[in-house]
Amino acid sequence: MNITTLGASREVGRSAFLVEIEDKKIILDFGIMVKRPTLFPLYTNPKEVDAVILSHAHLDHSGAIPSFFVSNNIDVYCTSASADISKLLIDDFINLSNDVTKQYIPFQHLELKKMMDNIKRVELNQEFEIGNIKIKLINAGHIPGSASIIIEGEGKRIAYTGDINAQDSSLVQGADTNYGELDLLITESTYGLNDHPERKDVENEFVSFAKEITDKGGTLLVPAFAVGRSQEIACTLNDHNFSKPVAMDGMALKTNEILKNNLECLKDSKAFLKTLDELMIVKNWKQRKELLRTPSVIIAPAGMMVGGLSSFYKDGIIMDKKNAISLVSFQVEGTPGRMLLEKKMIRINNKLKKIKGKFEHFNFSSHSGNKELFEMISRIKGEPTIVAVHGEEEQSLGFANAIKEKYGYEAIAPKLGDKIEV
Amino acid sequence: MNITTLGASREVGRSAFLVEIEDKKIILDFGIMVKRPTLFPLYTNPKEVDAVILSHAHLDHSGAIPSFFVSNNIDVYCTSASADISKLLIDDFINLSNDVTKQYIPFQHLELKKMMDNIKRVELNQEFEIGNIKIKLINAGHIPGSASIIIEGEGKRIAYTGDINAQDSSLVQGADTNYGELDLLITESTYGLNDHPERKDVENEFVSFAKEITDKGGTLLVPAFAVGRSQEIACTLNDHNFSKPVAMDGMALKTNEILKNNLECLKDSKAFLKTLDELMIVKNWKQRKELLRTPSVIIAPAGMMVGGLSSFYKDGIIMDKKNAISLVSFQVEGTPGRMLLEKKMIRINNKLKKIKGKFEHFNFSSHSGNKELFEMISRIKGEPTIVAVHGEEEQSLGFANAIKEKYGYEAIAPKLGDKIEV
Repeated sequence: MNITTLGASREVGRSAFLVEIEDKKIILDFGIMVKRPTLFPLYTNPKEVDAVILSHAHLDHSGAIPSFFVSNNIDVYCTSASADISKLLIDDFINLSNDVTKQYIPFQHLELKKMMDNIKRVELNQEFEIGNIKIKLINAGHIPGSASIIIEGEGKRIAYTGDINAQDSSLVQGADTNYGELDLLITESTYGLNDHPERKDVENEFVSFAKEITDKGGTLLVPAFAVGRSQEIACTLNDHNFSKPVAMDGMALKTNEILKNNLECLKDSKAFLKTLDELMIVKNWKQRKELLRTPSVIIAPAGMMVGGLSSFYKDGIIMDKKNAISLVSFQVEGTPGRMLLEKKMIRINNKLKKIKGKFEHFNFSSHSGNKELFEMISRIKGEPTIVAVHGEEEQSLGFANAIKEKYGYEAIAPKLGDKIEV
Repeated sequence: MNITTLGASREVGRSAFLVEIEDKKIILDFGIMVKRPTLFPLYTNPKEVDAVILSHAHLDHSGAIPSFFVSNNIDVYCTSASADISKLLIDDFINLSNDVTKQYIPFQHLELKKMMDNIKRVELNQEFEIGNIKIKLINAGHIPGSASIIIEGEGKRIAYTGDINAQDSSLVQGADTNYGELDLLITESTYGLNDHPERKDVENEFVSFAKEITDKGGTLLVPAFAVGRSQEIACTLNDHNFSKPVAMDGMALKTNEILKNNLECLKDSKAFLKTLDELMIVKNWKQRKELLRTPSVIIAPAGMMVGGLSSFYKDGIIMDKKNAISLVSFQVEGTPGRMLLEKKMIRINNKLKKIKGKFEHFNFSSHSGNKELFEMISRIKGEPTIVAVHGEEEQSLGFANAIKEKYGYEAIAPKLGDKIEV
């Protein structure tokens, strides 16, 4: 057996790994790196691949899978929620590429349709087979539908974490990290060297802030990713019996519909449905303008304020000092969210303006930090090789070194295109 | 009528222009920018385009045309030589992308085949029509088959130079730049601010150098582009009755076969056929090793020594001080050719080595310089708007300014995506 890293090697983005096992070639994730121009994994001849297994729906894991359907068809295995959410996100990516960024990508809607026609929906914890190879998806706790992947063949057992979060959130249960005995683990290392605060503490602080702003008659804008974070914020407010209106807008509403059809991927489906019942669904511009005058919380993509409806709302929010904005995720360099985080400034009509209202950042991460990653590795039986991927160069290299020191395991942060024998 | 710049805007590469005229959308060239990752023109919906007209076969003009054949078919108009050479170059580009650089591109061999099936071969100086629009290709003097494009419609007349060279070379006749009366000219501006030496002088110096090296028992390696420059060097030596063996290797030999079927695109087809007759065709490794011990000239791609057989020969050439290398084209930053030009060093087995033999650079440009471009513009009748493209930012802007000053014409160096009304 061997593994080739086709992406996510000393970088965050375009997760893609080729596993050659028994007589099969299996791809684990095949994502894009969201930048201009968009980066794809190393080219892989579609006709030489037997199957794709997808860990979760985010574009940096799913976005390049339609390339396997150019004059070709293969099976794609993933959870039902991952299938439906991938469709939503990849469809949006194709439209944005054609109409907004006007960049060429190696497939179009036809290939996405063929991909959807070839998806095999599998349940968590239910073993399935590809030839002689046994595969199992287990909960990864990252977003609804996310999974880690365990593969057995040639008398060996390996696992791939995908993106993983061991802490419970109000939306999804923390990851199942009982991999048992392993020969090799491919693990994300986004926060290989850093720790996150306890989720419960972050939730309490966020709800207090929302109460403070709305009690004084203000409106709180929460720019949030359409998949996962938007729903988590709504559930968190509902769990804490937040009494003012909570509104949701944009693509997050489409995710709600998908999750209603995939309730098995949520921590508490009753609480989720109750949250949706009490949510104000924003449908038109009249409602949007009214909301800006209502003491309320508005949850709207995009999470880093690159396009989406959060860009609209911000203009109305920032000029009144009783209003506020709270960012609830990591903000990439060069985005309006990062500018807000670092300088408390926002660009309106091409002019930078100092915001008048309050601003807070809450560390709702959906990745395990150093502490949880180490706990996960402590639990593994056997003498596994650890392959650190999906992290900036410093994080992946540092994390691999720390594992070598602490456990004496072989641990590497591979470069793009490296082949690892198991 | 209006024109949108989809590429080659304050940059050299990915030439691509959309002309909206009468009720048609016509694309002039649709090339790539050869770098990593490869850059494509702005995305253009294939279903919204009526036809493509190709000025010449180089990849920075032809390389993205197969993208119009993804679930679609349109007519592509070009000379017969451009059709055959494009096929050779795009086929090589697809293979290199899949197997060597391992990058995704938005089409595969199937789309190239469909493109070839939809090519309409047109002759120089023969007017043809697309709907009510009249089109004529005239000789551009850049490489075999290269053309400038004249378009008439809506009572207006515009021209696009493509890549143009007004000086005769030993292979192709200098450009026909009698455009007559124009409302607008899209012109390349690669050397908008610089002049080239007279071609005859460059040829004489090159042949003298080849004689000097081979008379002393040395071998001269000439890394050269497979299309055009390789054949020009062979013809130049033959024209000057160079008496030692002249060998040619690699993809340049495929170009020879294409040109034999397209003799009408050459300045002197008899001289070309005589040159081929006397040329030593290299077919195997035994011949290659013998050549390195023979006083001779070896012409081998790639022109900037990025891969190709020139990379093989150089290792044998540089360690003997009686041998020599001569570069015969512009060398892009970051290529082995540029390193040789600037530092007289070559990388062998990952170590930089000082070359022991002689080295010379000869300025065989296939682009008009400032003098020829100005002569071309002087000859235009009417009050044309001049659109300077296909030049580094400084060259295109400077050239546009110089035209404004000298002729009083409106002259611009558009940015990517600009729309120009005619």
